[in-house]
Amino acid sequence: MQLGMIGLGRMGANMVQRLMRGGHTCVVYDMQPAAVAELARQGATGSDSLEDFVSRLAAPRVIWLMLPAAVVDQALAKLTELLDAGDIVIDGGNSHYRDDVRRGAALQPRGIHYVDVGTSGGVAGLERGYCLMIGGEKTVVESLTPIFATLAPGVSAAPRTPGRPPGRGTAEQGFLHCGPQGAGHFVKMIHNGIEYGLMAAYAEGMNILQSANAGKRSRAADAETAPMRNPEYYQYDFDLSEIAEVWRRGSVIGSWLLDLTASALLDNPQLENYIGRVSDSGEGRWTIAAAIDVSVPVPVISAALYGRFESQGEADYADRLLSAMRKQFGGHGEQRESEDD
Amino acid sequence: MQLGMIGLGRMGANMVQRLMRGGHTCVVYDMQPAAVAELARQGATGSDSLEDFVSRLAAPRVIWLMLPAAVVDQALAKLTELLDAGDIVIDGGNSHYRDDVRRGAALQPRGIHYVDVGTSGGVAGLERGYCLMIGGEKTVVESLTPIFATLAPGVSAAPRTPGRPPGRGTAEQGFLHCGPQGAGHFVKMIHNGIEYGLMAAYAEGMNILQSANAGKRSRAADAETAPMRNPEYYQYDFDLSEIAEVWRRGSVIGSWLLDLTASALLDNPQLENYIGRVSDSGEGRWTIAAAIDVSVPVPVISAALYGRFESQGEADYADRLLSAMRKQFGGHGEQRESEDD
Amino acid sequence: MQLGMIGLGRMGANMVQRLMRGGHTCVVYDMQPAAVAELARQGATGSDSLEDFVSRLAAPRVIWLMLPAAVVDQALAKLTELLDAGDIVIDGGNSHYRDDVRRGAALQPRGIHYVDVGTSGGVAGLERGYCLMIGGEKTVVESLTPIFATLAPGVSAAPRTPGRPPGRGTAEQGFLHCGPQGAGHFVKMIHNGIEYGLMAAYAEGMNILQSANAGKRSRAADAETAPMRNPEYYQYDFDLSEIAEVWRRGSVIGSWLLDLTASALLDNPQLENYIGRVSDSGEGRWTIAAAIDVSVPVPVISAALYGRFESQGEADYADRLLSAMRKQFGGHGEQRESEDD
Amino acid sequence: MQLGMIGLGRMGANMVQRLMRGGHTCVVYDMQPAAVAELARQGATGSDSLEDFVSRLAAPRVIWLMLPAAVVDQALAKLTELLDAGDIVIDGGNSHYRDDVRRGAALQPRGIHYVDVGTSGGVAGLERGYCLMIGGEKTVVESLTPIFATLAPGVSAAPRTPGRPPGRGTAEQGFLHCGPQGAGHFVKMIHNGIEYGLMAAYAEGMNILQSANAGKRSRAADAETAPMRNPEYYQYDFDLSEIAEVWRRGSVIGSWLLDLTASALLDNPQLENYIGRVSDSGEGRWTIAAAIDVSVPVPVISAALYGRFESQGEADYADRLLSAMRKQFGGHGEQRESEDD
Repeated sequence: MQLGMIGLGRMGANMVQRLMRGGHTCVVYDMQPAAVAELARQGATGSDSLEDFVSRLAAPRVIWLMLPAAVVDQALAKLTELLDAGDIVIDGGNSHYRDDVRRGAALQPRGIHYVDVGTSGGVAGLERGYCLMIGGEKTVVESLTPIFATLAPGVSAAPRTPGRPPGRGTAEQGFLHCGPQGAGHFVKMIHNGIEYGLMAAYAEGMNILQSANAGKRSRAADAETAPMRNPEYYQYDFDLSEIAEVWRRGSVIGSWLLDLTASALLDNPQLENYIGRVSDSGEGRWTIAAAIDVSVPVPVISAALYGRFESQGEADYADRLLSAMRKQFGGHGEQRESEDD
Repeated sequence: MQLGMIGLGRMGANMVQRLMRGGHTCVVYDMQPAAVAELARQGATGSDSLEDFVSRLAAPRVIWLMLPAAVVDQALAKLTELLDAGDIVIDGGNSHYRDDVRRGAALQPRGIHYVDVGTSGGVAGLERGYCLMIGGEKTVVESLTPIFATLAPGVSAAPRTPGRPPGRGTAEQGFLHCGPQGAGHFVKMIHNGIEYGLMAAYAEGMNILQSANAGKRSRAADAETAPMRNPEYYQYDFDLSEIAEVWRRGSVIGSWLLDLTASALLDNPQLENYIGRVSDSGEGRWTIAAAIDVSVPVPVISAALYGRFESQGEADYADRLLSAMRKQFGGHGEQRESEDD
Repeated sequence: MQLGMIGLGRMGANMVQRLMRGGHTCVVYDMQPAAVAELARQGATGSDSLEDFVSRLAAPRVIWLMLPAAVVDQALAKLTELLDAGDIVIDGGNSHYRDDVRRGAALQPRGIHYVDVGTSGGVAGLERGYCLMIGGEKTVVESLTPIFATLAPGVSAAPRTPGRPPGRGTAEQGFLHCGPQGAGHFVKMIHNGIEYGLMAAYAEGMNILQSANAGKRSRAADAETAPMRNPEYYQYDFDLSEIAEVWRRGSVIGSWLLDLTASALLDNPQLENYIGRVSDSGEGRWTIAAAIDVSVPVPVISAALYGRFESQGEADYADRLLSAMRKQFGGHGEQRESEDD
Repeated sequence: MQLGMIGLGRMGANMVQRLMRGGHTCVVYDMQPAAVAELARQGATGSDSLEDFVSRLAAPRVIWLMLPAAVVDQALAKLTELLDAGDIVIDGGNSHYRDDVRRGAALQPRGIHYVDVGTSGGVAGLERGYCLMIGGEKTVVESLTPIFATLAPGVSAAPRTPGRPPGRGTAEQGFLHCGPQGAGHFVKMIHNGIEYGLMAAYAEGMNILQSANAGKRSRAADAETAPMRNPEYYQYDFDLSEIAEVWRRGSVIGSWLLDLTASALLDNPQLENYIGRVSDSGEGRWTIAAAIDVSVPVPVISAALYGRFESQGEADYADRLLSAMRKQFGGHGEQRESEDD
């Protein structure tokens, strides 16, 4: 099939490459001419304006947007002025699913089809394939099957689920039509919420292992600080890199995130090259907002998100207030790090 | 009654003063002669050694220890060598209740009575009185009623609970025999666990109010950072000092901790004189350990404690690992504070 | 002043009574004629339709709505058709602050002033006074001072904050103009979020005390269940009613909620007359949504809300999935309650 | 090598089979003669008493215990009476690592070597291999390499970590000497703590998806219940079985637990055959206790454990107290499920 890609950052460029490898032809556009040129060098049809881009696509056009969520609406407004009834626009980025619902409804009177695709896979997706969670009209989504089948990892990427009937849907190929518009990004949103929880679970466990020699450090014995009751039980100097590695085979907690953790720790078990300021890109927040709307308790995902906020310094005022309260009732001044040693 | 006090820090010295005001006579001892001299000036009987201290007390002796938990065992070992059957030792500090059980059992064969008293009230206790949670043998605890009644705030310190029969126990005077040895510190431990949760609830709420003008600050619009969806709804510049004050009267969340919060914010609503490194003195940790032993879910108290650990930098390794994972799957570098502005 | 009250439920009726006691005259309306009649009997001017109600108020009218949040918009639409420029409508219920912003903007062109008042105090407010958090235009809010001053508890309801300059604002009387429209309900929303956290902190602590005799119960010793390691330390039979009472005086955790807890436990320490299905009325949810919007970590308030969801059965599917996972990897069937004994 | 196995439950019996397939000879014992007979039929040497079992093993003996943690001490006491200096006892079950430290120290004077092995893999381990986390004396552990290498999955079970030097330790074969006695169970404890967090993250996400059609259900509009603000956004009927399947390939959250989740949902997406009473077997609790001892924040793992406690009904008293408080301040009765519909 022919597909037009707008947005040639890390994700978009890799997806174009994977599509071309799979025999599709791609027309590409980006604000950065260099990004266009690079893919043109690899066989894509470049374009130097939105108009040029649209004119190079055969009707009905299939256009995939791979842009930061914050600029999709703006890009979409310009683009759709140039489109015709029957054309299909796919948002493959990290849009909020409510924006999909709104956009789909806005484009519907003009006969332009809107499809939302939650895309997971990261920088490894070029080789590994992308997991695609898709929302939109049934026949429109079905018409895009060749694209999705090429981007997705394919059934051989994992053992088949025992007992699953052959030919039961596309999920085991790595792409799924999840429901009407918004459904794709809704499922991707939850996917990312889960991801936050998984990551935090590993990080917490590793942090304990990292501190399992805490009994070797002395602790202050004043009225303000609890002495460690059993320092003799915290004398272990663990090799976290090897522990991440051993868990990768046979254990209940094996996962792709664990594979990545083992990679990260291999060269750098103390991770000194990170400052520990953990970003978040929205889906974790939206997951919690959705959970609250539907009355579902999500303590784990919430704790994971709040941990990121804290890493960004967002608990500072609260912490100062806690110290201020302690000063009020107990006359306690704050302790500096050095005093704890 | 006559009472001997060992440990003349903030708490111990104030308790001696309150006891003397209530007509009791006090013999006092501390490693710091100046602390002894100061109370002697106010009417207490000073002593310059443990032997001297013990010799000035009439048998059966009543001795109150007000020491950091970490040094009680050591002090107790020296002291009890000098005591006789029938003497009473009271630990009024923040001991772990299991230490009370152990100490009580160790002293029992020698006829020395051990009483554990969880004491709440902080620096305000001198004027306001202390809430006393008491564990020990029934007759021994009852013999100390005059002491407890003086240290406690008395029934007039709060409105009587509607429907409570007059003369039903001592709780409404502010002291309570909670059960056998360890019961006093067990109840105090839970008290402090609750305190952690209460403090954190106020701090979280205040932190939101403090950030209620976040819509006025611009936020980055890149693939890594979620843009704020509705900045127009976060334009409030609240006066936190006045809000703490208004909540003190008539609201459901009025409390002594709120009174202290209003005091702290009155002079210094931004709390710049604190760095937000929040100490913990053990009871919060022990509360959670006890909850887990008895299978009781304590997500609020746990979150409060973990927030303190995070303020002490104890999440740093976990946070660096999260950034490392993100780098692995998404190629994301960490963002510095300045990039978020 | 003259004030019209629409909505004579628990809260509205009590507020009318408190206003009349304070010398104000009240016109009242409710869908239930009996509620109108009861207040008319006490001196209010009754009305039997919205038109009748409006006609009995002198211009510029001051009208207070005390209605469930879900019906305010509908009531407001009918009411404001009957109003004139210069009239003031006050929403004293539990509206979402964003609805205030929207309503204020909608009424502004017609010269009708909208004021939002977050009201705390519950059924005790009639005697105790109400804490009022107010949003709206400055001059309009100031014109309502006599109403607010009567509804609020007044400065004598609590000790003055030490060092607070006399005459510094109205907060110490128990009412506060917090900011523009929406500010009142924003502050009330946070107030209720804090309330959720405070309540949960007490409930968790009490639950541990209630289980402090768990060592007396035998626990299964199979591969599925962790045996209690130290049952000898959990042999306490605490009297929770007395413990709540003793904490009311002198302790750091004294509060109005603790006073209520002591009342609730006085007659019924096992609380058998409750099933433990804990409702929530929205503000807790909105608090968390706001916190996430402004990147503030709120683990305590979130845990408190999620605990309520769980009490409503909303974790059931998640729990069944956890059991299903355990069955998959461990072959573990679920244990029934009887097996644990 | 020859190995003696005591405890022929699910895990022990499978491990014997895997060892025999790998060419080792096994002597087996269990309280249930039928379990012994079944393995004898498959080629193991059966025994009908501990004495018989020990007599059939060549010195120095290698004996693996695969027993519930609660009975290990008792079994060990009887067994070690029959052993000689140089014999090795391996505890492969779920012991607390502190028990390992104690046992190792107790056996050391008699020259009996104690090795602790945390074993992960569950019922799938027979085919998939077991992940082994090992604590003990270096030379003793090294002498057991043939056993560990057979039980573990081997390096081919997962792609090699990029950049890992060939021959760097045994971790990539699936077994690791983690440190001195206790180190194996310490690492396994943390492994299981992480497992709790991972499982809960998936369960929370799936629970939201399961409720993504909540907007189709009406919600009460009274003062007690928050109406859903945007029901139009919660109209999705997701197929959870297919969503679990699609995530298995290419996504960031792929894992063995997700594979199992897809299996569990395949036949039974509503999971009606579970009641949602989720057991815990101790390691989650111990993980949190260890984290607190070393001051590491573990909000995610804690939330996961507390969710299990709640599923067991352990929040009931706290929930009743919350309802009682609400009744006190708001006069609110509890709502029954039917009222919410």
